[in-house]
Amino acid sequence: MDQNTPFDFATDTQTGLLGDLFRAGHLIPTGVDGLYGRGGQFEQVVDGIDRLISRLGEADGAEVMRFPPGIARHTFEESEYLKGFPQFAGTIHSFCGDERGHREMLRCVEVSEDWTAQQKPTDLVLTPAACYPVYKVMKRRGPVPPEGYLIDVGSYCFRREPSLEPTRLQMFRQREFVRIGTPAQIQAFRDDWMGRAKGLIARLALPCATDVANDPFFGRIGSLMANNQREQELKFELLIPVNDGAGPTACGSVNYHLDHFGAIWDLVTEAGERCHTACCAFGMERLTVAMFRHHGLDVAKWSPALRDLLGMAG
Amino acid sequence: MDQNTPFDFATDTQTGLLGDLFRAGHLIPTGVDGLYGRGGQFEQVVDGIDRLISRLGEADGAEVMRFPPGIARHTFEESEYLKGFPQFAGTIHSFCGDERGHREMLRCVEVSEDWTAQQKPTDLVLTPAACYPVYKVMKRRGPVPPEGYLIDVGSYCFRREPSLEPTRLQMFRQREFVRIGTPAQIQAFRDDWMGRAKGLIARLALPCATDVANDPFFGRIGSLMANNQREQELKFELLIPVNDGAGPTACGSVNYHLDHFGAIWDLVTEAGERCHTACCAFGMERLTVAMFRHHGLDVAKWSPALRDLLGMAG
Repeated sequence: MDQNTPFDFATDTQTGLLGDLFRAGHLIPTGVDGLYGRGGQFEQVVDGIDRLISRLGEADGAEVMRFPPGIARHTFEESEYLKGFPQFAGTIHSFCGDERGHREMLRCVEVSEDWTAQQKPTDLVLTPAACYPVYKVMKRRGPVPPEGYLIDVGSYCFRREPSLEPTRLQMFRQREFVRIGTPAQIQAFRDDWMGRAKGLIARLALPCATDVANDPFFGRIGSLMANNQREQELKFELLIPVNDGAGPTACGSVNYHLDHFGAIWDLVTEAGERCHTACCAFGMERLTVAMFRHHGLDVAKWSPALRDLLGMAG
Repeated sequence: MDQNTPFDFATDTQTGLLGDLFRAGHLIPTGVDGLYGRGGQFEQVVDGIDRLISRLGEADGAEVMRFPPGIARHTFEESEYLKGFPQFAGTIHSFCGDERGHREMLRCVEVSEDWTAQQKPTDLVLTPAACYPVYKVMKRRGPVPPEGYLIDVGSYCFRREPSLEPTRLQMFRQREFVRIGTPAQIQAFRDDWMGRAKGLIARLALPCATDVANDPFFGRIGSLMANNQREQELKFELLIPVNDGAGPTACGSVNYHLDHFGAIWDLVTEAGERCHTACCAFGMERLTVAMFRHHGLDVAKWSPALRDLLGMAG
């Protein structure tokens, strides 16, 4: 190690909510904006909210699936994520060199040169959103049955979007309920789950507004896609005020994909009709940060009802 | 989407334990070897074991930290992981181009050419082992107090090691207890935690042997490092038979790092003595696969005592 290398934790003297979360031990700086460790209390809150989200779909028999932080590159390419969000994607590269290449790599590290020249792209990409691996998995089961599918999915997700807003992480956990079925089933899901999601946030005693929204599509063509998404009212966000001096944060959303994923992965009903899909998504770290923002940094002082709801001892 | 692209799930017709786990819905193929989704029951077992591991350190007041699947590249470089295991590391790359570059990227995707030419390395690397982010975090607190540190850490980890053994995943969860302190404290931790880890595996009713081991260091110089590690008895593995026709699987390990990390991150006691470190690590997916291997694929048929231990309802 170069003994002259300074510790790179500029975030340590952070002001605002992020600084408060650091000093309370809820978030742990790593030297990279938007990449933080979490303390035990933060994780207790995440786990509590996670269980509440699970319960939202239990009575409907939602099928539980969890995925790792990476997705097959082939599936990722098919998803057309790169059309809308090339700037957010994270590809995973690995070293395929020999011992000589290894020595060259180590020389570069030693003299602080770029040592990644020999890293080659693998067949893995970081998962962009929790629902992305699901559609292809369901396609493999054959035609979609009359009742459609409801899947309770979760994974770590990645967005290359460094920020000092504690609600905007590069690596974060997402829970989603994904519905696959006829257009009528999807419409019913949207209306129903908008209510369920709002109900959950009300139980967490958080203020919440809902509004039509659009995804942050890339470039000028992206603006057209965003406008189109808003006009068709395909995305509704659950907005909670969290960050000082900034607009509210989308801690959840309900998204209608029309037949986008149904067409890509050829999801059809037994009658041969192309399926529509929708999802209801929650950002676990965003919801948890919102809890600390509104209920205080000391979980011991949260109301007994709230602590009980989250399954926190005492 | 190219309608001619076949689904790439060759693992679907998989034989052996991996095939059994697929067909039971415990693991979900993604088209990439060693990258699988998990079903609800698999995750219930993971969660149950996770809670039992947490309890191992609670009475000692272990400090809980959880980290995302990525680590700051700067910290990763300092760790010297690349000296021993360049072949396992996963660097994260992202697109930094403009709209013209985006069009070129999409053209490549369209004609199935490599579209990653414009992906540039970021300041993030996939976390190689759960304890790697911890040492630098603890260094920031100043000199290590007389009682040392005990940290309960967990994260997703990455190893570029595609395999059809269900115990050898590219992305997996690791729990570790990390001890930082004087050589005497670290020696005591090793002896104590070897027993705790074996006790946990006994409670899970799994067969287990322990043995001296070495890490899979890269290349010829790596062989020397491996021999050295064995001779000094720095690594003990908790070995459980899992895969058919293969040796037992290391589902946990106790590792003595001597002053390797203490030197890299300048961890010193208040008396100015360089700290030693050790960790006791568990592979969550490996332990869970071992449970299905030894107790059967149907968790409903597991003994009531075992289900109760894992907190599984009914």
